[in-house]
This record gives sequence, C-alpha cells and structure tokens, in this order.
Amino acid sequence: MAEARRTDPKAITRQSDDFDRWYVDVVRRAELADYAPVRGCMVIRPYGFALWEHIQRALDDMFKRTGHQNMYFPLLIPESYLQKEAEHVEGFAPEVAWVTHGGGKELDERLAIRPTSETIICSMYADWIHSWRDLPVKVNQWCNVCRWEMRTRLFLRTTEFLWQEGHTFHESAEEAQAEVATMLDCYAELAEEWLAMPVIRGRKTESEKFAGAVYTSSIEAMMADGWALQSGTSHYLGQNFSRPYDIKYSDRSNALQYPHQTSWGLSWRIIGGAVMAHGDDAGLVLPPKVAPVQVVLVPITRSNDVEGVRVVEEAVAAIERATPEGVRLTVDRREGIRPGEKYAHWELRGVPLRIVVGAKDLAEQRVTVVRRVDGEALVVPVDAIGARLPEMLKSAQAAIFDAARGRLDSRSVDVTSLDELADAFRERPVFASAPFCNRAECEERVKAAVHAVTVRNLRADRTASGAPCLACGGAAEDVALIARAY
Amino acid sequence: MAEARRTDPKAITRQSDDFDRWYVDVVRRAELADYAPVRGCMVIRPYGFALWEHIQRALDDMFKRTGHQNMYFPLLIPESYLQKEAEHVEGFAPEVAWVTHGGGKELDERLAIRPTSETIICSMYADWIHSWRDLPVKVNQWCNVCRWEMRTRLFLRTTEFLWQEGHTFHESAEEAQAEVATMLDCYAELAEEWLAMPVIRGRKTESEKFAGAVYTSSIEAMMADGWALQSGTSHYLGQNFSRPYDIKYSDRSNALQYPHQTSWGLSWRIIGGAVMAHGDDAGLVLPPKVAPVQVVLVPITRSNDVEGVRVVEEAVAAIERATPEGVRLTVDRREGIRPGEKYAHWELRGVPLRIVVGAKDLAEQRVTVVRRVDGEALVVPVDAIGARLPEMLKSAQAAIFDAARGRLDSRSVDVTSLDELADAFRERPVFASAPFCNRAECEERVKAAVHAVTVRNLRADRTASGAPCLACGGAAEDVALIARAY
Repeated sequence: MAEARRTDPKAITRQSDDFDRWYVDVVRRAELADYAPVRGCMVIRPYGFALWEHIQRALDDMFKRTGHQNMYFPLLIPESYLQKEAEHVEGFAPEVAWVTHGGGKELDERLAIRPTSETIICSMYADWIHSWRDLPVKVNQWCNVCRWEMRTRLFLRTTEFLWQEGHTFHESAEEAQAEVATMLDCYAELAEEWLAMPVIRGRKTESEKFAGAVYTSSIEAMMADGWALQSGTSHYLGQNFSRPYDIKYSDRSNALQYPHQTSWGLSWRIIGGAVMAHGDDAGLVLPPKVAPVQVVLVPITRSNDVEGVRVVEEAVAAIERATPEGVRLTVDRREGIRPGEKYAHWELRGVPLRIVVGAKDLAEQRVTVVRRVDGEALVVPVDAIGARLPEMLKSAQAAIFDAARGRLDSRSVDVTSLDELADAFRERPVFASAPFCNRAECEERVKAAVHAVTVRNLRADRTASGAPCLACGGAAEDVALIARAY
Repeated sequence: MAEARRTDPKAITRQSDDFDRWYVDVVRRAELADYAPVRGCMVIRPYGFALWEHIQRALDDMFKRTGHQNMYFPLLIPESYLQKEAEHVEGFAPEVAWVTHGGGKELDERLAIRPTSETIICSMYADWIHSWRDLPVKVNQWCNVCRWEMRTRLFLRTTEFLWQEGHTFHESAEEAQAEVATMLDCYAELAEEWLAMPVIRGRKTESEKFAGAVYTSSIEAMMADGWALQSGTSHYLGQNFSRPYDIKYSDRSNALQYPHQTSWGLSWRIIGGAVMAHGDDAGLVLPPKVAPVQVVLVPITRSNDVEGVRVVEEAVAAIERATPEGVRLTVDRREGIRPGEKYAHWELRGVPLRIVVGAKDLAEQRVTVVRRVDGEALVVPVDAIGARLPEMLKSAQAAIFDAARGRLDSRSVDVTSLDELADAFRERPVFASAPFCNRAECEERVKAAVHAVTVRNLRADRTASGAPCLACGGAAEDVALIARAY
C-alpha cells in the first residue's frame, strides 16, 4: 500500500507504460475507491459513490418507467434453498461465503451470503404467485452480493460488490424474452447516453451464460486499451427455476402452469468501465451527466492585489448566481495552492469543464472555459456563462462519446478465418467480428488462436447469413464479437 | 404461516384484542413485508419498500443539506478489527454472524457481518486522516447490517436490517457534540414532519447507551398502545475509538491529536413505528408525505349503464389531467370487485385520500373525497379537485400528526415517586416523566417498580432543577422519560 501515499497526481503511471497500474493509480488517487483490509473488498469513497448515485438514479428511473418496483430480499440464503437448481448451484457454490455461526452458536444449517438472489426470490414467490392475475411480477433490488473471486481488481472484480438485480415472472416465453431485451436496452441506454460508452449487444455462448439460464445477453464496451468490458447482463431463465422451486399459477383456462422468468444485473463494475473507457494520463475523464462535479471554477488572484481580489470575487459570485439550478458547480477557493496544482487536481478527478477567472481576463469581462476531454478552450463573456453552461456540458458529453465511438470504430475489424483473427491482434487488442457457428469446439479453437481472447457475444446487430464459420468453415448464422476481456 | 393466507382484510385482528397480532396482520396483509425462510429475516415488499424510499430520500436530502457525503464500506469485518475497542466488542460480539468459509476453504481469520461499522471505518480513516485540514470528515452509508436477535419482529427487530449509519470526525469535542445534536434534529424532523410522529429527544442512561460511546441521544415516539419506540440514535464517541484505532492528525499548532467522533443511525424500524403510531382496526394510516399512493380514485359504474360508464371515465380522465405533478394518484379500475371491497383494500394500505366517482355524483358535477385518518368526507366540484388536492393532503398530514400529538399529550403524566409511577401505569401504559438522579441503582428501582418499564431517555426539553429523584429523593437535575418500549 506504500505507493498509495504518493499524493502528487503527476505520479500516476502512464497508460502506455502499464495500463493496469494506471487504472489502479487513477481509481485511488482520484479517491473513487480504495482497498479495504478484507481480502478482495474495497471501500467506495464519496467521490466514487456520488458517481454511483447518479448511475443508480438514472437506471432506477428507467426501471420505474418500464413498470418495475423495488423491494428487498434477505442477504442470507439457507444452503438447501441454494441447491434446488443444479446448474445454478454448480456455478455459484465455489464462490460462496458461508455463515456458520450466529448469536454465539453453530448454526444447524449454514447460510450463504447471496451471490445473486434467484433462489431466495423463487422460494418467496412460490407463496405469492397463484393466478395469472398475479403476473407479470417485475421487481428489482439494489443490494450487495459476495462472490469469492481469486483475482480481484477495484470495481471490476471484488469479493463484495454493489449492484442491482431485477427479477420478473411472466405468463409466456415471448413476454419474458421481450423483457430480457427491454432491460438490455436500458443497460445500453445507461452506457451510451449517460456514461458515453458505445456498446455492442448480443447473446452469450453456452459456455459464458449465467448458471441456470436458458440464455444470457450482454452489452460489451471497449476500453482505452482495446479490451472489452461486459457491462451488464440480462438473462432468460425460462422455467428452469420455476419448476424446481415449484412456482405454479392457474392460467386463463384454469390449468396449472410454471411462469417464465428473467433476471438482469448491473454492478458498480460499470464505474471501472467509465474510468478505462475515457481516462487519460492526467486521470479521469467523466461524462457530464454522471460527473459529481460538472464545472469547477478556479479564481486566480494575488492576495496582495486587493482590487484584483475584489473584482475576481465579484465575477465568481456573478457566475455562481447565473449558473442554472441542476448544474453541479464547485469553486476551488483553497489557499496556498498554485493554479497549476488545482488544475491537475480537477483533471485527475475528470471534471468536465474548468472555468478560470483571473483579473486579467476580467479587464475584458470574459473568462476561459477549458474542456477536460480534449483541452478545447472557449472564451466566453462573463455575463453569458450561466446561459451557455448547459449547452457546453451537452457538447462535452457528446465529445466524450464521439471519442469512444471513434476508437471503437478504428479498432474494430471483420475477419473470416482464425489466421485473419491472429493477424488482427498482432499489433494491439481489437474487437474482431467473424461469422461463427456457435459450437463449443469452434469456440475453443477461437480461444486457442489468440492469447486470452474469448467470444464476447453473438452480435444482435449483425447476422452471418450462412457465411463460413471462421473456425470450421461450416455455415454460420451468427457474427461473433471476439476480444480480450476484463 | 397458514393464517397469512387469509386475504380478507377484515380478518385482521382488532387492536384492542391483541395489539401485537394486529401489528403483524397489518404489516403482512398490507403487503409491507413478510417473513423470510431465514430465521429472523424478512422481505420488504414493493409497497413497504416504496415507503422506505420516501424516507430515504427525505433523510438523505437532510444529510446532504447538512454537509454529509455518502460512501460505502465492506460488509465483512475481520475479527481482529472488531476487537480493538473493548466495550464495543463486548456489546456486539454476542449478536454477530460469522463467516468462516469462503471460496471452498476455511478462512484463516473469521469475518463478522457488520453489526455496525465503526471498527472498519476507523481502520480506514487511520490511513486517510493526517492533518486538521482533513477534518471534519462527515460521511454516511445506507446499507444492511446483521444482529443475531433472540426474539424478532417484522421491521422492529430483525436479524438483518436496512439502515443508514453516519460517521464523523472532528477537531474538537464541542464541534462533535454539536454534530450529535444536529443529526438528532434531522431524525426528529423526519419523524415529526414526514412521519407525523411527535417525538421526545433526550440522552440515554449509561446502561442503555451505544457500546463504546461517551453518550447516546435518542428520539422516542409513542405508539397507539402507549408503548415507546426508540426511532433513531445519535452517539458522541469522544476519542474512545480514535485512540485504539490510532487515528491521529496534526492540529493547527502541529501537535498530534486524536479526533473526536460521532455516529448516528436510523433503520427501517421507523416504518414499524409509523404503522403502530397511526394504524387502526382497518389497517394502516399513512402520512401523505411518505405514502406510496397518496390518492386513490375509485370509479363506480355499472357495466350495463353505457352512458354512465362514459361519463365516469370522462370525469376520471379530467381528474387525472388536473392532478398536479408530484401527487401520487392511482385509479383502481379492477373489474369484478365491489366498491366496498376496494375501499377496504385501500384503507388497509393506509392511502390518505379516496375519491369516489359515480354517475349519480356527476349529475351534480361533484365528487366525494374521504380522508383515511378520520373518515371526514368533503364534497368537491370535479373541476376544482386537481387544484385542491395538495391542500387536502397537507391537511391530512396535519390531522395525522395532531391525532398522534393528542394521544401523546393525553397519555403523558408527571410523577414524583415510585408509587405515583406505579399508579400511573395501573390502567394503561403511559409516558411518565419524573425527576431522576441518573444513578444506576435508581434506574434499577424504577425498572422494579412497574413491570417492563425502562428509562427511555433524560429529556432534552426539561430539567429537574434539583427536585427530588423519584427513586431516592436525592437532588435531581434530569427529568427521565419512563415507559414500556418495543
């Protein structure tokens, strides 16, 4: 932990030297999060949590808009409840943290800290769903879960993490599958509209799907190093859980049926995604819509210049008054710190716009607004600044998205064979798309062809229409997205 | 659980027959919460969670208004971290749930599921606080905690519960103590302004304070049966934690100091308080400011009266259009359910206002608005209803508070001796106030004088000015609030 004590923001590792160290440096120095003394756990600090609150609010509004309600199920799940769905328990049991003692006694049955809540939720809804009139059920919870991971990484893979998990029950497979798609769209909207990360939607292969699901769909975003980050998943569970958990309802013709289920989840991992998608050697680059501080105002005055101080303070007050409600503005009045240090401080924290107010500018009644994403500087009259901030934030948001979109486009390639795949990765990691037959053997061949690549998903936006699979040459219907992934 | 299957809202137990069963019936039938299959745990259902969301939002706004930031610390605390403050561990260890296995292996050191987070937070801040410039630190987290309770009760005492816990670090004892008072004021504001529960503020006795605190202050509310509910606590920790956890900072004269700390918490238990403070034999009575549904509109039509249906639907649409944004209105269009059943359904759920729209009323272009708290019925012209709703909700909020205030006043008595105390409780539970010397022996005598009473707190709003202690007759400075408590 010794390196963490360096507080000079310039001390962060350069991306080109070591992207992984750059990531950890930025997350810790920008005070988003830090390691906790518990293996694989982290503390999310106020600046990081404020980011999470904006993400939560945006997503929660979407959930409510699409007819979902929040509720809360217990943290602890009896082992016997976990074990009813065979694939599910096989997938999650190795990662479970077990409570064996409580209230000073050994428990009769050990309790799992939820790795995900399908099992407890199905157990409860078996009591609550009786008739088709009780359907659909569309609920969500914001909570913590634990998965004992071997290798952990701030935000991306932690033993405990915060997420939301949605769970729905439907009369028909069609309705449930439409829900799976709707929720993946919500995740894509969050990623693209709020976090400025273009994503690729698609279905996971059998080997990568959620344990117990019929199928899993995902959004995949490209990080600054060309690696992929799975940023949200939406699962069609079919009747795989309703049968073993014995959830039955009388349908419209009074016959007993098992409902069709979905579940979908997005975690604080997406914060790590935003860091790695947009950040640079100076630190974070935060999209304005989720940035805890959208605009920082840095007054520059010499304390012996009494008249200058007065003029600058008046301008600062005028800008504060003119700033529309809802724009998150901070004034950096810290004393004894040079302007350059202040700039670096807020650059590290990714604040989208910096307004510098000095006596010299004010002689001409104007200020300079510098945009974090590309350093673009705009000179704006003091009395126009309030009115123009919303539009400048909007255009900063767009510039961040465009930069990410540009990188995704320039580092995406279509390949038709394993040789072409290997070639595509020779220089640097890319997103490769290829016709793919979706057989397990071919998936293995893809993984063997290039170090550390996986099939991320079968793209929802493309079809192979019978073109030859990149691995076996057989007729392929799907286009696989192939990349290295966090 | 068999009794839960009765869905007739009329089947709830009467308060006068068995207040405890009434409470459980109402919480479950109104679908606020239900028992989970894990001992002592519960599920909070969408209707109950929506209530919690309104409470969270109100309180979180107050926290931010008073300069606090949210963050999130890990769920799991290593045993060695828990053990550094002796009183604290003694108080909480018997209630801890222990994780002993994770990732398929027995752990080297067992991990506590947090019963509260002082220990892990102090461990982290020992690394983050260096200078007086780092103070004050004022943070909060919304999270789940576990305490292995012997007897559990929905919302009031559950093994796992949701709460918020605030933690602050200050340069001086004075500043920290002012913080303790400010946060207790926030809790009182939430209870009185939002939940319509008048409360009595005061300091806990030594035997009732938070384990490890210098002192604890609380708000106490009166339930419909005259019992008290502790509804929020705010603790002054002094340097009791900063010393053993070795949190040191250089003060303004460059000397090393231990910061002064506070912590304060409020849980979903306050929902149980709102249920018991305002509910009646028909079910919940929810204060409009936190009610998930503030107004229910019940159209009454006979399906064979085609013209009547049309007129009623038009009136419903007109009322919906005229309802100001922010008023939470629901239309109950369920078919095949008699009006009386619908009324009972929404009465059980405590909806503050019911608007009934029938063809007969509409002939005169008016509707009847019935207030849940007292059944008061107002006839309002259809075209005025939208404009009048906010004021009617405000007055319903006030009526609920006034009813609770009236009960608190009528069931509060001043006593001067243990005999008078016993007399006061002969008929029914009351809030008794008495001069009290605050010695442990006298507290024991108070508890022995009347079955199940305790000193709830030493009232902040009163002083004994040397009057004789009700137990020993010695000079007393404090006035004790004595009651039976949940």
